[in-house]
Amino acid sequence: MRFLHTADWHIGKKLHGYDLLEEQADAFQQILAIAKEEEVDAVVVAGDLYDRSVPSVEAIEVFNKMIVKMNLQEKFPVLAISGNHDSSIRLETGGPWFVQSNFHLNTRLDQAFKPVEMLNTQFFLLPYFEPISARLYFGNEEIRTIEQGMKEVIKEMEKQFKPDMAQVLVSHFFVAGSEKSDSETKLMVGGLDTVPLSLLESFDYVALGHLHGKNALQAENARYSGSPLKFSLSEMNQKKGVWIVDTDTQKTSFEFKEITPLRDVVQIEGGFKELIAPEYYESINREDYLHIQLTDRAVIPNMMNQLRQIYPRIIGVERLFGREERQKTSETKKEIKTLTPTELVDQFFSEVTGEELTKQQQVWINDNLAEIHQAERGQ
Amino acid sequence: MRFLHTADWHIGKKLHGYDLLEEQADAFQQILAIAKEEEVDAVVVAGDLYDRSVPSVEAIEVFNKMIVKMNLQEKFPVLAISGNHDSSIRLETGGPWFVQSNFHLNTRLDQAFKPVEMLNTQFFLLPYFEPISARLYFGNEEIRTIEQGMKEVIKEMEKQFKPDMAQVLVSHFFVAGSEKSDSETKLMVGGLDTVPLSLLESFDYVALGHLHGKNALQAENARYSGSPLKFSLSEMNQKKGVWIVDTDTQKTSFEFKEITPLRDVVQIEGGFKELIAPEYYESINREDYLHIQLTDRAVIPNMMNQLRQIYPRIIGVERLFGREERQKTSETKKEIKTLTPTELVDQFFSEVTGEELTKQQQVWINDNLAEIHQAERGQ
Repeated sequence: MRFLHTADWHIGKKLHGYDLLEEQADAFQQILAIAKEEEVDAVVVAGDLYDRSVPSVEAIEVFNKMIVKMNLQEKFPVLAISGNHDSSIRLETGGPWFVQSNFHLNTRLDQAFKPVEMLNTQFFLLPYFEPISARLYFGNEEIRTIEQGMKEVIKEMEKQFKPDMAQVLVSHFFVAGSEKSDSETKLMVGGLDTVPLSLLESFDYVALGHLHGKNALQAENARYSGSPLKFSLSEMNQKKGVWIVDTDTQKTSFEFKEITPLRDVVQIEGGFKELIAPEYYESINREDYLHIQLTDRAVIPNMMNQLRQIYPRIIGVERLFGREERQKTSETKKEIKTLTPTELVDQFFSEVTGEELTKQQQVWINDNLAEIHQAERGQ
Repeated sequence: MRFLHTADWHIGKKLHGYDLLEEQADAFQQILAIAKEEEVDAVVVAGDLYDRSVPSVEAIEVFNKMIVKMNLQEKFPVLAISGNHDSSIRLETGGPWFVQSNFHLNTRLDQAFKPVEMLNTQFFLLPYFEPISARLYFGNEEIRTIEQGMKEVIKEMEKQFKPDMAQVLVSHFFVAGSEKSDSETKLMVGGLDTVPLSLLESFDYVALGHLHGKNALQAENARYSGSPLKFSLSEMNQKKGVWIVDTDTQKTSFEFKEITPLRDVVQIEGGFKELIAPEYYESINREDYLHIQLTDRAVIPNMMNQLRQIYPRIIGVERLFGREERQKTSETKKEIKTLTPTELVDQFFSEVTGEELTKQQQVWINDNLAEIHQAERGQ
C-alpha cells in the first residue's frame, strides 16, 4: 500500500510569541492536497499532534477541523499516535468512535500490540511512552530505559507479524545517532530515551516522529518525517514536507514531497539604513518570520520600533559584529554616583538618541530638576 | 418514546476537598441500570458533564469510560449538551464521529436548530450559551439577556416543529422562580440569565439542567433532573435520581427514579464524648460525608484529629451552641503584653489542653526559658 507519513504538527505552537495557527492550517491543506494527488491509502501521523498537553481552545478548534476534513470528509484512513507533547488521556477522548471511520488514534501502550491491517500492511501504532509504562505492562522491574522497553515491545509485536504482509511501525522517540534541532523540547538528556536503530530492523518501514528535520536519520527502513513547518531558526535551511511510502515494491520505497510555508523562517543581513530602505525591503518577503543580522555597531535610537514597522514578524535581532563600546556606557556604578542629576540626564539622552541636548532642552531639564529639588525640601 | 433525563454530572467535582470520582462512577452505574430496566429509547444529559472547563485527566478517564459503556457497549442513544461548567470547544472534540452511533453532543448554538428525530419525538439539543452568541447568531444587536436570546431561539425552533411529533427541548439555564441550592456556582446575579417558564410552553417536555434539585421547578412540561449526587450540605435532604419521561402518552408523563448514593451527605449532632463512643458511631454509616453539629461549648483538645480517626469524611464541624467564652481568650493584646513568658506558656497550655501544667512541666518550661534568655544575651 501507499501512505503519507507526517508527524510533529504541534498545533498551537508559537514561534517567538507569534501564533502559527494560520501557517499550520495552510500546511495541513498542502498535506491533504499531497494525499489526494498521490492517491494514498492512508495518512500516518507519528505523534505530537498538539504542542501542549492542555492545548488552547483555539488549537483544539483548528485540529478538530483538520481531522474532520481528512477523515470524515475526504475519507482518508488516519493512523496516528500521541507524542511526548500530547496528553495521552486528553487525546484519547473519542478514540473508540474514531475507529468506526478508520481513524486509529493510539494513546496507550497496550493498543500498540493490535496492528491495524490495511491492504498488504500491518501498522503497529506505538504511542510515546515512558519506561514506567513498559515496566508495568510487561511486569518487568528491569525495564528502566526506553531502549529496554522497546526490546520487549518489539518482541511482542513480532509475534503478530504475518509473513505475507509488510510491517510498519509508527512511533515517536529519539533514534540513536539522529540529529536534533532547537525546537524539540523535553528531550531527555543522557541517552535514557534513545533507541538504537538495530532494534528496528524487522520492520519494513518505521514512520518516526519526535525530531523536526526530515534528514535527522538516514536509514534503509526508517525516517523522521519532520515537522510540516519550521519551528525554530535552526531549522531555517531545512526542507519541510512529508514522505510518500510504498510497501508494494520489493523493498519499501519512499519519496519526499515538499510543503511551501505560508510564511517562511528567514535570516536577513544588512546595515540598519539598508534594511529600512524601500529598495531593499520591497525586494524580499517582509511577511516572513525574520531573524535580522545587523552589521551596524553603533547605538540606533528607537531601533526595534522602526524595524517592526517594516517587518511585522521579527523573531530576533543580532548584532553581527557586536556593539560599539562607548566610554560612557562602560562607566562603573561608582563613576555614575559622582555625576550630578543634570549630567546623568544629559548622558542618558545622548545614549538613547545618539544626539546632544539642545540649549532649550537643557533649560527645561534644569527647571524641572530644580522644581523636584524644591518639592523634596518642602516635605 | 421513552427516555431517561439526567443532568449535572459534574464529573471531577470535589466535595470539601474529597474526590467524588468513585461516587460518580457508582451513580453512573445506577443510571445505566435504570435505563436498562426501564427500557428507555435514549438517555438525555442536560449539560454540565464536567465540573470544570479543563477537567483533570482522571475526570476525563472516568467520563470517557461512562460514555463508551453507555453508547458503544450498551448501545443507548445519548442526547447531550454542554453546560456552563463545560468548555464547549474542549467538549466538542469527537462530536462528528459520535453521531455515527447516535451519540449527539451539541456544544454550539447553531446545532440546536437541527432537531434529532427519534421515533415520535423531535429533540432540540440547546447547549448553554451566553447572550453574545445569540446576538451574533441572529445578527440582532438588541439581544442582551438570555431571555431575549431564548425568544429568538424558540421562534427558530418552532419553525422546525412537525405537527405529528412530540417536541422536547434539552437545555441548561435558570428558569425564573426555580429554587437554588449551594452547589450551583457561576450563576449570574440580577436575573440576566433567567428564562420565564411561559417561553417554554410550546414544548411537550423541557429536560433541564443547571439546578441540582429535582424539585427546583414544578411545571406541567418542564423538570430539572437534578444532579445524580448531593454536591453540598444544602442538598442533604434532597432525593437524587433521574426522570423517566414518556412522550407516547396523551400528555407527556414523567416519573422519578431514585439513586442511592455510595456515600451519602449526612448531618449528625451530639456531644463530643457521645460522638467518639463506639456505641454511637457503630450505629451510623461512618463512611458518609458528615457535617457534625457539636453540642459542646468547651475547648476540646486535638478535636479534629480525634474525630477524623473515627469519621474519615468530615465536611464540616459546627458548634451548635457556640464556644465557651473564657476570660483568658478574650484578653486584649495589651493585657497579653503585660504577661511574663512563663505565664504566657502556662495560659497557652491550659487553653489548648484544658489542663493545668504539672510541677515537673513548670520546671522544664522555666529551664528552657532561662536557656533561651541566656542565649539571647550571649549574642
